[in-house]
Amino acid sequence: MKKLSILGSTGSIGVQTLEIVDRFRDRFEVAALGAGRNVALMKEQIVRFRPRVVSVLSEEIAETLSRQVSEPVEILHGIEGLIRVATLDEATLVVSAVVGAIGLVPTLSAIKTGKTIALANKESLVMGGKIVMEEAQKRGVAILPIDSEHSAIFQSLVGHQKKDLSRIILTASGGPFLNYPANRLRDAPPEEALKHPRWDMGKKVTIDSATLMNKGLEIIEAHWLFDVPIDKIDVHVHPQSVVHSMVEYIDGAVVAQLGIADMRIPISYALAYPDRLNLALPALDFFETGQLTFVPPDPDRFPCLELAKRAISIGETMPAVLNAANEVAVDAYLRRKIRFAAIPELVEMAMTAHQVHPVMTAEDVLKADQWAREEARALLPDS
Amino acid sequence: MKKLSILGSTGSIGVQTLEIVDRFRDRFEVAALGAGRNVALMKEQIVRFRPRVVSVLSEEIAETLSRQVSEPVEILHGIEGLIRVATLDEATLVVSAVVGAIGLVPTLSAIKTGKTIALANKESLVMGGKIVMEEAQKRGVAILPIDSEHSAIFQSLVGHQKKDLSRIILTASGGPFLNYPANRLRDAPPEEALKHPRWDMGKKVTIDSATLMNKGLEIIEAHWLFDVPIDKIDVHVHPQSVVHSMVEYIDGAVVAQLGIADMRIPISYALAYPDRLNLALPALDFFETGQLTFVPPDPDRFPCLELAKRAISIGETMPAVLNAANEVAVDAYLRRKIRFAAIPELVEMAMTAHQVHPVMTAEDVLKADQWAREEARALLPDS
Repeated sequence: MKKLSILGSTGSIGVQTLEIVDRFRDRFEVAALGAGRNVALMKEQIVRFRPRVVSVLSEEIAETLSRQVSEPVEILHGIEGLIRVATLDEATLVVSAVVGAIGLVPTLSAIKTGKTIALANKESLVMGGKIVMEEAQKRGVAILPIDSEHSAIFQSLVGHQKKDLSRIILTASGGPFLNYPANRLRDAPPEEALKHPRWDMGKKVTIDSATLMNKGLEIIEAHWLFDVPIDKIDVHVHPQSVVHSMVEYIDGAVVAQLGIADMRIPISYALAYPDRLNLALPALDFFETGQLTFVPPDPDRFPCLELAKRAISIGETMPAVLNAANEVAVDAYLRRKIRFAAIPELVEMAMTAHQVHPVMTAEDVLKADQWAREEARALLPDS
Repeated sequence: MKKLSILGSTGSIGVQTLEIVDRFRDRFEVAALGAGRNVALMKEQIVRFRPRVVSVLSEEIAETLSRQVSEPVEILHGIEGLIRVATLDEATLVVSAVVGAIGLVPTLSAIKTGKTIALANKESLVMGGKIVMEEAQKRGVAILPIDSEHSAIFQSLVGHQKKDLSRIILTASGGPFLNYPANRLRDAPPEEALKHPRWDMGKKVTIDSATLMNKGLEIIEAHWLFDVPIDKIDVHVHPQSVVHSMVEYIDGAVVAQLGIADMRIPISYALAYPDRLNLALPALDFFETGQLTFVPPDPDRFPCLELAKRAISIGETMPAVLNAANEVAVDAYLRRKIRFAAIPELVEMAMTAHQVHPVMTAEDVLKADQWAREEARALLPDS
């Protein structure tokens, strides 16, 4: 029986994780849940999964929740609450699925207490890859990716030898703007950018998918997760999103993982690894998928990809700056403060202005994150 | 250092195996070689690889060879010679790459003496799958497939759990007649059938690829090699031959192996497993491959596929009959004695006439093979 702590239980990944827990009660139990503001859903999850501890964003939300809940549950709040959820004694597997920089410290705390990590929180690796992986290695902690691309790479590496790897091929759907008219791309409105062709995701991630910054962040994640240099990670635009990613070996063999676009596949793989769960999903129908195609990403159309590569090549605090400036830029774009083409421009300006610091602790990373947010905000037209 | 005995050293697989041995002398040595009639090439191989023992088809050929060779080498002949090559004390890995029924007994002998097997000889499994796999299991002998499809399946299974397998998807190029006009297919001439679009192979295998009997035989091989029931093995026609085969798991994930069409990839994988060799082949260029497509095989156009499934469902001596009758039919077709459409007709007639016997020994299989050859020859128009 695996006992789960889920950071971000009311988000998309959290909800799908609990759906799997519910279907496989003989395998999984919930130890603790961490969420933000969604009191109604958290209440439901407490009734259904009986965690011993939960945590929400603030003291106020915790109080609201405790008034509505009659089950015996310890209700905490804030970053300390989230850390408690991540490090609870009885938890054996921590699903790190909060969105944003707030995921870093709880994830790191979970690793320090020896928990296996199912990782969906990109920022833990994008910002703190060096310290997270060092800590995981030191404690012998496994980090199992939930991201569909990294799960695919993981599944294409397992059973093969890392020394034989020649290249990781990250696939990208290309997002909604793959074939958008070039002359209109600079000013493409948010409602167009939010029409993702394949995956149903949150707004921030969908915009990242339109700028291809998501692929840039995934390159950084893959670099840390699999300890592969950036020049051995290629991006192939694959509009059908059937091949979730691939690994090429020195003999020329390429191993790939394919599937329908359903996050329950990588989630369940991370939860049950090394087992697989019978999800009773429709099989991938190769006769229906039509043609599978691959094209190189257009660097003019998607400058974010190069910015991400530049950030990780510089290393230390620079990827945290890339990530934070991007968050500010995407938020401003969604609020129609800046146009689409200004997203990479803003990120690049913040990176150029940044004085790189060595990363020794989570503090170093969070400081750079803070700095970049302020810098990027200051660069916005309104300020 | 692995010491190799190669059965079929002068054939296409044998020659490519030796090319790899030559490039990786620090890993491989040749213990013994077995071949048929090609004295000139065998002589070259003796000079280059210094085997202690070789074997050729007949006493006469052995004498011709011994007159031409000054190196200290024991020269044997016939099936006894081939068995000696397969069971030589110092050999640790036996590459079974002879073509035809003659491969069964030497391969079985190699397994009985505990050698690891790199298997290219289809007939060992098609005819004798039951006894070969029972023997391998009893001795704890690994059988590593050389066939590109089975190597792909092997590479898609390694690191994953067999209990989680839901389906094997064998890919087929579709051969030269995939889009051949239906009304001309019955009488398609050998010169058309020999134009294989992707792989450069021997005549027999190329015709099997035109009738899709090769895929039928591969289903039978996969069934034995991976212990998977026939109803969990699907064939997908994939004209680009980029995806060499796939495995689908119960969670919906599909793992696949892709690559350029070069037999040195699966050969080297079987030789070096679990390592991979840096073959310095051109990488698979996904931007050049164009679209990857998959269509179901047309049962009217390619009745051999169903015949093969029927043969393995009946089991025991029936697959040996399928195989032997097919060999006779293909030979007759190449000699223009029968038309293309008569190949499956002849195989089906032999199968219908066959009285199934239980398979306990190689003898049982060879008797059925012999019977089917005589039966099929008797059915030819000339007789």
